Amino acid sequence: MKNVIGIDLGGTNVRVAKINENGEILQELKSPSYGLEGPEVVVPNLVNLIKQIDDYKNCAGIGIGVPGPVDTVNKIMTLSSNLTGFTNYPMAKILEEATGLDVYIDNDANVAGLAEALVGAGKGDPIVYYTTVSTGIGGAMVINGKLMSGRAGYAGEVGNLIVDHTRESFNNLNKGATESEASGRAITRKGQQIFGDCIESAGDVFKLYTENDPQAIELVDQVCMDLAIMFSHVAHIVDPNCFVIGGGMLKSKEIWFDKMIANYKTLVHPGMADIPFRTALLDEPGIVGAAMLPISFGK
Amino acid sequence: MKNVIGIDLGGTNVRVAKINENGEILQELKSPSYGLEGPEVVVPNLVNLIKQIDDYKNCAGIGIGVPGPVDTVNKIMTLSSNLTGFTNYPMAKILEEATGLDVYIDNDANVAGLAEALVGAGKGDPIVYYTTVSTGIGGAMVINGKLMSGRAGYAGEVGNLIVDHTRESFNNLNKGATESEASGRAITRKGQQIFGDCIESAGDVFKLYTENDPQAIELVDQVCMDLAIMFSHVAHIVDPNCFVIGGGMLKSKEIWFDKMIANYKTLVHPGMADIPFRTALLDEPGIVGAAMLPISFGK
Repeated sequence: MKNVIGIDLGGTNVRVAKINENGEILQELKSPSYGLEGPEVVVPNLVNLIKQIDDYKNCAGIGIGVPGPVDTVNKIMTLSSNLTGFTNYPMAKILEEATGLDVYIDNDANVAGLAEALVGAGKGDPIVYYTTVSTGIGGAMVINGKLMSGRAGYAGEVGNLIVDHTRESFNNLNKGATESEASGRAITRKGQQIFGDCIESAGDVFKLYTENDPQAIELVDQVCMDLAIMFSHVAHIVDPNCFVIGGGMLKSKEIWFDKMIANYKTLVHPGMADIPFRTALLDEPGIVGAAMLPISFGK
Repeated sequence: MKNVIGIDLGGTNVRVAKINENGEILQELKSPSYGLEGPEVVVPNLVNLIKQIDDYKNCAGIGIGVPGPVDTVNKIMTLSSNLTGFTNYPMAKILEEATGLDVYIDNDANVAGLAEALVGAGKGDPIVYYTTVSTGIGGAMVINGKLMSGRAGYAGEVGNLIVDHTRESFNNLNKGATESEASGRAITRKGQQIFGDCIESAGDVFKLYTENDPQAIELVDQVCMDLAIMFSHVAHIVDPNCFVIGGGMLKSKEIWFDKMIANYKTLVHPGMADIPFRTALLDEPGIVGAAMLPISFGK
């Protein structure tokens, strides 16, 4: 069985792992990423970690997931707010020269989707649309085992999909964008508007929901409809074989998940009503998905 | 150069053509389709036409476009309102037995999109999202030269995408569905509500627009925003390399096309603003696209 190296590079920590093609982690190293100290510190540390992987030279390739958008065609990090000095940085080329291995790169939401499509909840399905519903909302489209990032890497930017253009705009997103209406951050904002500073997180709103607070129920019901509209958009445009949903809001799954799906079924043609909604399976989609990048390119 | 046979089967007429892989029509036959008389009349007539194609046995395959949804995996017509008796009809298998050639089948909107992607306005682009804006609104997604019809053939059902859920529902579509708000039929309906029976078509509304009628301007401006929202949905979900737009509303292109694109640019991240919008190039996308089906499957 082939082994590959997966790298999850964040602003705070970096993890490097040897992973087999089934997505099993065989060896893992972790270190601070020194994300604010620039490429001249971040990269040598990263190369050092790679070279500590047992028999790294016989791995079939390296995949790396990074925060922020990536030009996957030219394998360049376009920009990163969490890593200083990496704007237009040719990360793959640099690591290839340092290690002698082929390197593939994509953003962290995309690699998480790839992991779920290849060895997680979407395994075996030709078209998997992955969505993370968390502080923000993002996604990834995987077709026949390959990430389809689109013309410039924007496929899966479902957080900016309009669910109701009659509402307000926040954070430079569209008026009534999904992320502004149905993310964890949005639920917190809306909860604070109603209940004040006693709301510190979406979880506090969900708690009031379970206590049958009528305003919390109204808020959560709206979120369930907004998410359903977002998924109906994806269904009509792509008709995926399954939806895979990850992200922190699954901690409150019992409150919103089934209600959202019931709404979704009212918004699509009957033939799309039974597209399965699956919850993400993997504990480590970031690093496993990074490792799946070379696999998905046939390495 | 390979030749293939393309068939455009409608409720009224059927056309059968010999077409080369560049999409050039070499020979074409036309006949009534006898669409209301059932498969026992329609199919022998169709087979007879195929066998009149010069040297048909040396063609690389047959592609057929039909009205209504198709199960492309099992090559079965799911249902057709324009052709009597074809519900769950195994059209491809029947034609394969009659001709000895491999047969591929898809619906007419999808094959038109395939034609534009392979030999029309989207030629050379990896991800082409085709949309027809006409009496109704439909579409097709073509990735790397292959139709991506989705799990059950619903990819491209953009007419049912919600652009404003606060509006009404028509024809079993979603409340505020694109087709109910921005198709030729929708513009006619809205025009009649404002101006009465003097409006017989969308063209009459566009004429009032050119005469600076303020209500017509308001109506058309709303249509331009609704279509822009629809395309913004596609951009965020798929990020295609280009949009290709076909359909009868292009007859009034100078009125709405640039205005729609200007709206679109306000609804997407900067990196998606310059996705090109191209108008369909082909005179005969139906029959050429049918012929492209076997080509797209590598025949």
